[in-house]
Amino acid sequence: MLLEKALAGDELAIARLLTKIEYFTPEGLENLQELMKRSGNAHVIGITGLPGGGKSTLISGLISEYVNRGHKVGVILVDPSSPFSMGSFMGNRVRMVGKDLQKNVFIRSIASRGNLGGISAEALMLIEALDGLGFDKIIIETVGAGQTDTDVVNAVHTVGVVSVPGTGDEIQALKAGIMEIGDVYIINKADNPEAEMLYEAIKFALDTAEINFRDGWTPKIVKTIAIKNIGIKELVDVFEEHLNYIKSRGLFEKRVRDRRVKMLELLLRKKIEDIISRVIKENLNYISKEINEKHNLLGLVNEMYNNVKSYL
Amino acid sequence: MLLEKALAGDELAIARLLTKIEYFTPEGLENLQELMKRSGNAHVIGITGLPGGGKSTLISGLISEYVNRGHKVGVILVDPSSPFSMGSFMGNRVRMVGKDLQKNVFIRSIASRGNLGGISAEALMLIEALDGLGFDKIIIETVGAGQTDTDVVNAVHTVGVVSVPGTGDEIQALKAGIMEIGDVYIINKADNPEAEMLYEAIKFALDTAEINFRDGWTPKIVKTIAIKNIGIKELVDVFEEHLNYIKSRGLFEKRVRDRRVKMLELLLRKKIEDIISRVIKENLNYISKEINEKHNLLGLVNEMYNNVKSYL
Repeated sequence: MLLEKALAGDELAIARLLTKIEYFTPEGLENLQELMKRSGNAHVIGITGLPGGGKSTLISGLISEYVNRGHKVGVILVDPSSPFSMGSFMGNRVRMVGKDLQKNVFIRSIASRGNLGGISAEALMLIEALDGLGFDKIIIETVGAGQTDTDVVNAVHTVGVVSVPGTGDEIQALKAGIMEIGDVYIINKADNPEAEMLYEAIKFALDTAEINFRDGWTPKIVKTIAIKNIGIKELVDVFEEHLNYIKSRGLFEKRVRDRRVKMLELLLRKKIEDIISRVIKENLNYISKEINEKHNLLGLVNEMYNNVKSYL
Repeated sequence: MLLEKALAGDELAIARLLTKIEYFTPEGLENLQELMKRSGNAHVIGITGLPGGGKSTLISGLISEYVNRGHKVGVILVDPSSPFSMGSFMGNRVRMVGKDLQKNVFIRSIASRGNLGGISAEALMLIEALDGLGFDKIIIETVGAGQTDTDVVNAVHTVGVVSVPGTGDEIQALKAGIMEIGDVYIINKADNPEAEMLYEAIKFALDTAEINFRDGWTPKIVKTIAIKNIGIKELVDVFEEHLNYIKSRGLFEKRVRDRRVKMLELLLRKKIEDIISRVIKENLNYISKEINEKHNLLGLVNEMYNNVKSYL
């Protein structure tokens, strides 16, 4: 009933269904399995970068451009510091007809749950659900600081890394290996006088990179001024180019499969971690006393290990 | 033998011992248990904040100030983008006598291992080891973005949160709850014209916060210009004030206990997660095929759950 309504595009039903999935209710999980039969078609785009890079504004622009091109857009926000929401988006985009927009756009924020830089089971379940509900462009916004973002990379089709000129972070980001994760490097706030320097730095890092780029795709660099809607059309063109590239090489389906395996793994980990948390909680006083008095760290780890085992 | 040498202050022995601990070798873990009998005395200080805030320079200043005050300083760096190292530190501090410095300072970088914003078992083990080796001030540098940093907070005595004026991130950081984790808010690069605005923003957030501050300590705000060594002395004074505050309330030992319980929990999780990884790896082809063809997500999770169980 809820699923049928959601599939028919009822916004409230979609919201409720996603909540049930996000909180692992039995109904939510059953519906997720049902939706998996219909999913696997959406182009999933990850937008990552440090806070303050204008990711929210950029995503506003992307939504508008994709809707104008006839797509249905689902957005998942995992940035804990993001002030972006459906409300703020609607407020900023009065020039679009509200009803059309509401029918073709769904935005959901989820708690990062300590998975900063990584991706959570919840985020992957929502991608899968929005995909199954017929959203054919799914944008997931995460906070990234480089190395730890490989989870995001493996779960999406196209990765856009946002950098900002003049922040002094770029060189550090380059060093830290952020150059290894992007399919598209987006220089936002490109009207900053230092934009050219950042462009050259990224270009140099890409030209001299001693790695094989993912799937043999040479990453592109795109300059945007999101707040003035400049460069967004070009950015979407590059995303489409990347989509065609991976589709023509059979990599689109592979990415869907990898995402699902990751989702399964995270669900499994969550299930077991819940038991570990319970064991720790139940034995907290005992552990706390023992570890301070006897310093038998390894003995206690084994003792708790056996407790977990008996609960599985 | 290695332990004795390390306890005698042999720098190479300390480095080798820490490596053995960090990589969970049996010898390393046994020595860690031995060191726990001597640990629990060091004042552990967490320095957190986004990349680009000048944390490295600030920590350089803290090390010098603490050594000048007669302390032995251990430093653990978990920031993947940090360019800071013993080498860069020594290079910048030629005015200190090298030998004295080397004897009283030990700096170790560790991989963040996806624990961005959190804390890893490895980091806690190194705190414990440096503590047991007689370093009485231990500084741990992490990359923080707010909400997910509670692990760090619970593992250290004093939390310093570094913010930088004029980056536009401050308000977002405030919103995201970073105001709930700091004992001391450090406004670095305080010669920036927007420093006063940031100061007022943090002060306002603290004054109007509807939370009970940790241990009843009202967070302090300190302005620094780390690169000119301005404000470092005052910052150390505030750290000492906070140390005295928690000591006088019996909270110093409590924090050590909490840190050890967390270390045990992380070691337990690691042990079990290694098994989960193994199960996923061994069944990857099967999972990948099944999940795409039959979409029996929950069935597969249960199947792998039973596999994990049989391995424990």
